[in-house]
Amino acid sequence: MELLFAYLIIFAAISGALASDPDPLQDVCVADFASGVTVNGFACKDVANISAADFSFDGLAKAGVPNNSLGAVAAVASVNEIPGLNTLGLTMTRADFAPGGLVPPHTHPRATEMVFVLDGVLVVSFITTSNVLVSKTVKKGEVFVFPRGLTHFLKNNSDKPAAVLATFNSQLPGTQIIAQTLFAATPAVPDNVLTKAFQISTEEVDKIKSKFAPNKK
Amino acid sequence: MELLFAYLIIFAAISGALASDPDPLQDVCVADFASGVTVNGFACKDVANISAADFSFDGLAKAGVPNNSLGAVAAVASVNEIPGLNTLGLTMTRADFAPGGLVPPHTHPRATEMVFVLDGVLVVSFITTSNVLVSKTVKKGEVFVFPRGLTHFLKNNSDKPAAVLATFNSQLPGTQIIAQTLFAATPAVPDNVLTKAFQISTEEVDKIKSKFAPNKK
Amino acid sequence: MELLFAYLIIFAAISGALASDPDPLQDVCVADFASGVTVNGFACKDVANISAADFSFDGLAKAGVPNNSLGAVAAVASVNEIPGLNTLGLTMTRADFAPGGLVPPHTHPRATEMVFVLDGVLVVSFITTSNVLVSKTVKKGEVFVFPRGLTHFLKNNSDKPAAVLATFNSQLPGTQIIAQTLFAATPAVPDNVLTKAFQISTEEVDKIKSKFAPNKK
Amino acid sequence: MELLFAYLIIFAAISGALASDPDPLQDVCVADFASGVTVNGFACKDVANISAADFSFDGLAKAGVPNNSLGAVAAVASVNEIPGLNTLGLTMTRADFAPGGLVPPHTHPRATEMVFVLDGVLVVSFITTSNVLVSKTVKKGEVFVFPRGLTHFLKNNSDKPAAVLATFNSQLPGTQIIAQTLFAATPAVPDNVLTKAFQISTEEVDKIKSKFAPNKK
Amino acid sequence: MELLFAYLIIFAAISGALASDPDPLQDVCVADFASGVTVNGFACKDVANISAADFSFDGLAKAGVPNNSLGAVAAVASVNEIPGLNTLGLTMTRADFAPGGLVPPHTHPRATEMVFVLDGVLVVSFITTSNVLVSKTVKKGEVFVFPRGLTHFLKNNSDKPAAVLATFNSQLPGTQIIAQTLFAATPAVPDNVLTKAFQISTEEVDKIKSKFAPNKK
Amino acid sequence: MELLFAYLIIFAAISGALASDPDPLQDVCVADFASGVTVNGFACKDVANISAADFSFDGLAKAGVPNNSLGAVAAVASVNEIPGLNTLGLTMTRADFAPGGLVPPHTHPRATEMVFVLDGVLVVSFITTSNVLVSKTVKKGEVFVFPRGLTHFLKNNSDKPAAVLATFNSQLPGTQIIAQTLFAATPAVPDNVLTKAFQISTEEVDKIKSKFAPNKK
Repeated sequence: MELLFAYLIIFAAISGALASDPDPLQDVCVADFASGVTVNGFACKDVANISAADFSFDGLAKAGVPNNSLGAVAAVASVNEIPGLNTLGLTMTRADFAPGGLVPPHTHPRATEMVFVLDGVLVVSFITTSNVLVSKTVKKGEVFVFPRGLTHFLKNNSDKPAAVLATFNSQLPGTQIIAQTLFAATPAVPDNVLTKAFQISTEEVDKIKSKFAPNKK
Repeated sequence: MELLFAYLIIFAAISGALASDPDPLQDVCVADFASGVTVNGFACKDVANISAADFSFDGLAKAGVPNNSLGAVAAVASVNEIPGLNTLGLTMTRADFAPGGLVPPHTHPRATEMVFVLDGVLVVSFITTSNVLVSKTVKKGEVFVFPRGLTHFLKNNSDKPAAVLATFNSQLPGTQIIAQTLFAATPAVPDNVLTKAFQISTEEVDKIKSKFAPNKK
Repeated sequence: MELLFAYLIIFAAISGALASDPDPLQDVCVADFASGVTVNGFACKDVANISAADFSFDGLAKAGVPNNSLGAVAAVASVNEIPGLNTLGLTMTRADFAPGGLVPPHTHPRATEMVFVLDGVLVVSFITTSNVLVSKTVKKGEVFVFPRGLTHFLKNNSDKPAAVLATFNSQLPGTQIIAQTLFAATPAVPDNVLTKAFQISTEEVDKIKSKFAPNKK
Repeated sequence: MELLFAYLIIFAAISGALASDPDPLQDVCVADFASGVTVNGFACKDVANISAADFSFDGLAKAGVPNNSLGAVAAVASVNEIPGLNTLGLTMTRADFAPGGLVPPHTHPRATEMVFVLDGVLVVSFITTSNVLVSKTVKKGEVFVFPRGLTHFLKNNSDKPAAVLATFNSQLPGTQIIAQTLFAATPAVPDNVLTKAFQISTEEVDKIKSKFAPNKK
Repeated sequence: MELLFAYLIIFAAISGALASDPDPLQDVCVADFASGVTVNGFACKDVANISAADFSFDGLAKAGVPNNSLGAVAAVASVNEIPGLNTLGLTMTRADFAPGGLVPPHTHPRATEMVFVLDGVLVVSFITTSNVLVSKTVKKGEVFVFPRGLTHFLKNNSDKPAAVLATFNSQLPGTQIIAQTLFAATPAVPDNVLTKAFQISTEEVDKIKSKFAPNKK
Repeated sequence: MELLFAYLIIFAAISGALASDPDPLQDVCVADFASGVTVNGFACKDVANISAADFSFDGLAKAGVPNNSLGAVAAVASVNEIPGLNTLGLTMTRADFAPGGLVPPHTHPRATEMVFVLDGVLVVSFITTSNVLVSKTVKKGEVFVFPRGLTHFLKNNSDKPAAVLATFNSQLPGTQIIAQTLFAATPAVPDNVLTKAFQISTEEVDKIKSKFAPNKK
């Protein structure tokens, strides 16, 4: 469960599945989380009630503490955190890495991602649908692009901390961490799917599942 | 390698990564595969050279033979097979399942998929970014939707063959089969990424990789 | 009226006019038909109330009985039938043809259509805005594309039944059957528009109108 | 043929089929009609060779002379006439009506249209996919909207000339005049399709076809 | 204030910021201004309550009287005036110019604009992001295009009145008149921003601000 | 000229005008700057020639030196610098501010912008089309959103340096710095437009123009 907890800390806020978001039809449409009506995105607050605070967020200011089994932790600034982002098609996140820390293989269902290295050195990688691994070592101040929808991951192979600021062209990019998606879903993905997909035994499947199980905390 | 081969047979033609494709700007823009110029999508053939054949394909007509380790095989009718689909935002595929056959967990980077069961009974499942498994048993003539970008899979738990016709809202939806993406990429995903992501040993990683290795054919 | 009835059976469920639908802004936004609020598309049900059934439909399973004057009958699986399709940009329909049956010339205001022949042999045709007829005979298992917005029709010239599965890149593609649109609208299209458009007499117009009139049932 | 000629004069330049065009990716991408490469839309001229003339057109300045059987004539300012419109998503047309003149029922495959009455009084009408006729008399200076993809027509029921300026949200909206599309296509739409669709005899079909035939000029 | 008043007369109705609007998902979605729910665009009226009047407007019929310091006045027909435009992506405006009249430099946040000269002669100009001024003299019946988002202006250098009909590919294009935006905002743009931006003194800034101040009426 | 030079340093690389870019139709379409063909965006390099370097850039790594009259300097990472961004819809820039430094009022023709404060304290402001100034003081680690197309500016009112990382949902967002656009265009915006727009004298216009003139270097 500790691992699952780590995953959840990393990605909890990037829920939802997004893409090249529909264009806005007015200057601003600040998300009205109190509205009883849900639509594609969010209903808008009355313009009379909006303020500059709706367009701002301080939750990425402090470095996260990556004291989990992955050695990585993330904070998110999507429409869920910044209601003013509704209809505007952008999200930012910050990830902090301990030495050896990993943001494990994952996808964003419909957003391209671009990272700026705030600190340290990281190996960043994505895999195309032709199964080609594209990988590069990037250091402080460098940027790298993960094309829309493709599996990617970031690893700190150094003995120093690292951090990135990531940006997505969607107000809610969504994240599927592959291991968690397959081995920690509720209800569980059937063992016979996983044994066949990964060509491993039921025992091996169950062992992996146990690492992600909530009761293993 | 046999497994990889199975994967490749299943998904070879669904390369590329797609989404709600840009709208067409003319009646038709039949892909000109001979053009030396590549663009987002394809350049168009001269209108004088197009014919009804550019809009048709017979490669889905025959049931595939799922004689591989997965017990499932797919054929694709995307813009790569039907040049007339260029700019028009649709793809169809057909998958045939042996008893017990599995189309393993995978994503389409930017397309929603809808399946129609041509024959048999299948369990169809997708997993949301909140890690909820949504699953249903569907039989001949029934349809099911896999929302855009989310991990999904189809399994024939019966003792009879089954088949589906799938459709995607993109001219080239792209596919990432999770196991193949992570354990059979070139160059390889480093072991220390996979051990940490799945919480398994290097030996276990290498064992899975060997199942997908080309030289294991 | 029998003819009109045939038309209505064929296309009743494909109401609405669609196109390359706006992208989704979350994993799923299941249509809430009970909501008092209507928007572009539909408002979403509370996520707590959705289930796999929202993404499935069995109304295309049985072949329709084309016992009308056109010899063709259709069933639809759009967002109106599958609430989970809301925001996801796909629709499927099934059409069954008696020998000689016709799905008459019609347009989908904004969707491309792709058909897969489930059974039999059909002549499929579309007409470009340059007034070129593109036509082909397709048989079981073959596919054909009708580009977005163009007039098209399907005819079973054989002496055996036929059937197709059609897919559209919109959650509600909309249909305008040309004859019905012009000769059976309410209120009626004025006679002097139709005489001039088709270069026929008022008597001829009225005769056609009478074929589609409800009281002619 | 005279009628076909009238149709061609009215709509010749609105060829192509369009919709909510893809967004531009630079300030301007002036269509390069001399490029040997065709893409979705047009390739761009070298920025060094563009001028203000690429964004202008004087072909709508003079009223057309509606001396044909329909009593209506149109001129178009789309990307074909104004290369600077490429990627920018707009077209304008002008239509002039004799007393009694008609722009017959037609569709634009993917554009919404909005008309401004330059002169006179017109009855403007569209038909929804639910077969409801929406109609209004509009006079000089008034505007009216024809929703995307729906069949519509304009008629001058007065004894004075009239004119409209129309605008479309596409660089090449495309037009299908229903009568011409069905009765004057090349190759011809088979008689047995038209007899069944309109419930008329082969003789009646052939009579209408003869009105649109080129050799009837 | 008189100047500000002139500005407000010209552009009051073009509030909001738009672009290539999201595609419609039904035939029509007439804006329901009475709805308590606000979304991206507008909620739809019940179809049972719509009529042809929802798609029409007569507010552009009469020439405006440009009796202000700019010598130009505008009227707008956007979704705010024509509820039927909701989801359909078009707006029209009319501007009337006294001799010497100016529609001052402004931007539409996301729409391309195309103008048709109803009367007179105008100099029309836009400036690219490379700071190139593209300018042309256009007379009655000619059209000109202002590419999406770029600063542009129109001037009547003749001694006769002039008028244009403008169209935008958005249901609510939005307008920012540069001088008003910077020198008449509420709260005010700080003097030290404007002195530095324009390289002028605080006195000069305050003098300009006073020209736009409400109490200067 | 020094001022113009400052402007050019700040924004030179953000040329072009963008928006919610069209979706990609393949995994990657790396811009081929050597192609003789220009399209909406860029033609793609042969996939065989792409590498990880196409997705990376180090030009934002070092703080710029804001030794100009504005006290601010910017560096850009758009598709022009990172060919792999082509079709992917994102850009990043970095701006460094001296104490008192200003990024002057400007617009991005079609992109929303989101800034993350890398260092220091800044006042960030945008102005709506209703002429409302929305302003906030943000410090290191905080983020702020500038909605699509609206005029905005950033000012360092502190006595310490500051820096931001900005992101845009377009591969080439485009920038129009208002003062430079109006007072330093080539050819020049006519004096009588600027005098009327800003209600200042010709002498005052010419004085401002001289501040931006190249020969004033």
